[in-house]
Amino acid sequence: MIIVLGSVLIRQGAIGEATKLSLEHVYRSRTEPGCISHSVQHDCENSQRLVFVEEWSDLAALHVHFQVPESRAFVGALTVLATEKPKMAIHQVQQAGP
Amino acid sequence: MIIVLGSVLIRQGAIGEATKLSLEHVYRSRTEPGCISHSVQHDCENSQRLVFVEEWSDLAALHVHFQVPESRAFVGALTVLATEKPKMAIHQVQQAGP
Repeated sequence: MIIVLGSVLIRQGAIGEATKLSLEHVYRSRTEPGCISHSVQHDCENSQRLVFVEEWSDLAALHVHFQVPESRAFVGALTVLATEKPKMAIHQVQQAGP
Repeated sequence: MIIVLGSVLIRQGAIGEATKLSLEHVYRSRTEPGCISHSVQHDCENSQRLVFVEEWSDLAALHVHFQVPESRAFVGALTVLATEKPKMAIHQVQQAGP
């Protein structure tokens, strides 16, 4: 399994629009092959920061996701609303357990 | 590296107190050996849900963290404020990359 952790700091006045766009992206992504979970949160330390947590079955599914035109359009739109380049880390899970 | 993903649904009227307690736990946890990152977020789909994202150097450090009295007290206090048992998944990460 793959875990994707992302975050982006949104400029003042744009968090409402950024959250709306992010939720649309979340709902769309959940319907894609290999998507196990996809969510967006507001950082409790800074409500202008959006935090994404995603789980994908494998890297191939994730790479297909990156190529979906709506995914690319979303990243572009979010970047316009941000004060920094969105950050993303991709982690390959070896195992899960207690 | 270890990634911990947690979430809990807080009862109506208690999200302020739960967020305050969670942030105290976050700040304390960041000072512990092996803690790479520790954060808490509000789910954009349900602002009563807290989402935790943690990165630890290894399982041993995480298990020490679980035994810290303040960690145990925090989980107990959060559970009292919740409408469900807090959920947590522990993932051992093989590698990170693009």
